[in-house]
Amino acid sequence: MNNLDSALQYTAKNRQKFIKDLNELLAIPSISADTNGKPAMENAARWIEKSLQNNNFDTVKIYQTAGNPVVYGEKKTGKKNAQTILFYGHYDVQPVEPLGEWESEPFEGVVRGDYLFARGASDMKGQYIACLKAIESILSTGELPVNVKFILEGEEEIGSPNLEDFLKQHADLLKCDVVVNPDTGMIAPDVPTITYGLRGLAYFELRVYGPSSDLHSGVFGGVVHNPGQALCELIAGMHSSDMKVTLPGFYDDVRPLPASERAELNRLPVSDQDYLDQTGAPALWGEDGYTPTERLGARPTLEVNGLYSGYIEAGAKTVLPSYAMAKISMRLVPDQDPQKVYDSLHLYLKQNAPETIRWELVNMSGAPACITNRDLPAVQAMSRAMERIWGKTPVFRRDGGSVPVVTHMQEILGVDSILTGFGLPDDHIHAPNERLHLPTWEKGIQVLICFLFNLAE
Amino acid sequence: MNNLDSALQYTAKNRQKFIKDLNELLAIPSISADTNGKPAMENAARWIEKSLQNNNFDTVKIYQTAGNPVVYGEKKTGKKNAQTILFYGHYDVQPVEPLGEWESEPFEGVVRGDYLFARGASDMKGQYIACLKAIESILSTGELPVNVKFILEGEEEIGSPNLEDFLKQHADLLKCDVVVNPDTGMIAPDVPTITYGLRGLAYFELRVYGPSSDLHSGVFGGVVHNPGQALCELIAGMHSSDMKVTLPGFYDDVRPLPASERAELNRLPVSDQDYLDQTGAPALWGEDGYTPTERLGARPTLEVNGLYSGYIEAGAKTVLPSYAMAKISMRLVPDQDPQKVYDSLHLYLKQNAPETIRWELVNMSGAPACITNRDLPAVQAMSRAMERIWGKTPVFRRDGGSVPVVTHMQEILGVDSILTGFGLPDDHIHAPNERLHLPTWEKGIQVLICFLFNLAE
Repeated sequence: MNNLDSALQYTAKNRQKFIKDLNELLAIPSISADTNGKPAMENAARWIEKSLQNNNFDTVKIYQTAGNPVVYGEKKTGKKNAQTILFYGHYDVQPVEPLGEWESEPFEGVVRGDYLFARGASDMKGQYIACLKAIESILSTGELPVNVKFILEGEEEIGSPNLEDFLKQHADLLKCDVVVNPDTGMIAPDVPTITYGLRGLAYFELRVYGPSSDLHSGVFGGVVHNPGQALCELIAGMHSSDMKVTLPGFYDDVRPLPASERAELNRLPVSDQDYLDQTGAPALWGEDGYTPTERLGARPTLEVNGLYSGYIEAGAKTVLPSYAMAKISMRLVPDQDPQKVYDSLHLYLKQNAPETIRWELVNMSGAPACITNRDLPAVQAMSRAMERIWGKTPVFRRDGGSVPVVTHMQEILGVDSILTGFGLPDDHIHAPNERLHLPTWEKGIQVLICFLFNLAE
Repeated sequence: MNNLDSALQYTAKNRQKFIKDLNELLAIPSISADTNGKPAMENAARWIEKSLQNNNFDTVKIYQTAGNPVVYGEKKTGKKNAQTILFYGHYDVQPVEPLGEWESEPFEGVVRGDYLFARGASDMKGQYIACLKAIESILSTGELPVNVKFILEGEEEIGSPNLEDFLKQHADLLKCDVVVNPDTGMIAPDVPTITYGLRGLAYFELRVYGPSSDLHSGVFGGVVHNPGQALCELIAGMHSSDMKVTLPGFYDDVRPLPASERAELNRLPVSDQDYLDQTGAPALWGEDGYTPTERLGARPTLEVNGLYSGYIEAGAKTVLPSYAMAKISMRLVPDQDPQKVYDSLHLYLKQNAPETIRWELVNMSGAPACITNRDLPAVQAMSRAMERIWGKTPVFRRDGGSVPVVTHMQEILGVDSILTGFGLPDDHIHAPNERLHLPTWEKGIQVLICFLFNLAE
């Protein structure tokens, strides 16, 4: 049996052990948005460190940053002139609210049917473990065909505020031929997917202030502008009736979609009904003139991520609130600039906010969109690996999400990222009952093994 | 000297005794919101009972309710065909927190300058004592010109949960020609005031549902309608650019303001700057074509009392929420019907909610506005009494708030209430250092004496 086949066999035999190890990592509540969560972040970083040490990595180190630590690991192959692959991942997860909607504890991995349920199972502790277990499978049965490096950050879910600096300070350490970033998923269990484009992100908090303190709505209703209402009016005005974003100049820099790429994108085996099934929405919605797939991957959007004003507990309180807040974010496409998007929103507010309220716009995070060359040898090696394991060539798509690190890798390290991953659209990431489809995940581990061997051919 | 003049003289001579008696009542910490405060509530009720017995009332009785007791008292005049006046009051007070901000003990009446400081001095133990001392002044010097009844509840500050039932059960006992409710105040020490209108209230919760669970805003932003955005669009549409409520038929039943009443309302000595000072809002706002005073008292309004969707904690979460909620209430004027207002909002939603979301409207509470006929003989008797004591006719105002007991008296007993009282806007009611302006209060006692004699003319 050759080295590749032995490694694949090891994977097949160790299913339960792999899940057990993943469950250990899932049990650590590493919510980066939780300002009281520092100890959990440290625990998660140490767990990652240990997991690399257990595989006899040459170097494993935790680097402190201004925020959460970065874990780095490196293992060289004995083979000459071997390529170096950098695996990127993040060990932080999204908050778990609303807790009441979880069917099992968010930080206790539970298998039900083909799925493993827990916060982070799909996004992306499960993806890190897939990479780790691919390496373990190879090392347990032979030698690595290429050099591998790992970088795991703990702030992806809050916009990676310290990663850019880290990459700049450690550019030599992180030198590599290509990055594998398994933080994007697949379209369906039978559709292996490589993502070559990602949307960027600009995230804001809009605060609207009315009277200097909460008022009695009977005593003052009718003489001051309700900031909750004013906020709604501002947000309502951000979309036109054809569902385009109205912010001045918002579409100015948007790279148009060539007809050939539109044709390719619309070959993706996803129907309107699929989107309805995945979301449970009563009907689809979105910018006139584009298909859902185009809107998701290649068109910018504006979303309300949070709304707050006044009294929101059970029952009735006749308050005229002094304050209202919205979290608002935009998904960006090439060549939109997050700073210009901020300017655009700011100008909209300047032009549209009435004098009856005060407002403040907080710029929380921003990253441009990015796109990867589909002809890269490493991309082709991944494509062939998927073909071997799934028996079909992968589809290439542009993803609606944002992975700022991909842009940073390109700008700072000068390397492209292969964007893949073994999560599915209905994994409920960022939502209650997040889950991982185990059969797909196991195929993913096998794909990663094949990919590494393909690189050495 | 006639009976009226003797009574007025008695009042003038007994200033210190009246304050001493008021201080006894103020010393009882009858905070209805305090669930451990039952003994104080009982003590306050017994003090009221005693105070009526001391005036040789024909009947005095404490009625237990599901909550705090109601004190009832009644004294008949010997005169034939005399009217019966029902004095309403409450012996409970607001909590005293924040305690550190009080300059003297909240439950120890202290005179500083023209003011008596204590919790309840203005709202409304002082007002009850004013009524009691008017009666005492008359009885000490002669005979009552009319029959009087008193009803004192102990739950006004917690929404009078048991009063409606009490009124229904004791409608015969409480039979009267008119109610005097001294729980609304005066605009200024030199502006005697009668409130003749109160707005009603209709309170709703609007729930908007989008996708069946929270989604990742990158993965699905652009294909489903964000319920937070949809809610904002619906709320924004509830007002037109001239700040009118757009709900279909919303103004149909609104009783128009006659020119004479508008002129009278706008005599109120309250300027735009006063409203700006009281609210701290950057600018005034409200329905075109009406002055602030008209908008507050005589025009219906729609307010957002609460807004919620998605992620509202610190930091950023790129969630596309599955749910959004608004608490929305309307202040109603005669002759709007809360049920018709519900229908109107429901119809608006039916006509305007898009098919891309689901919605639900919860009808939480409703009470119609009420208005007292200014031409009632009893209102005129009060007006003449004020003119005699202050040397000027009172202003008539409509108040923006809602006082459910007034509606209940009208619906259950079939009688109007004369809304007045001798508190001032800067008495700090519901706040630390509550106080009573003693010169105004003494005039108030004299007004009540004159009022009772005017009724018998």
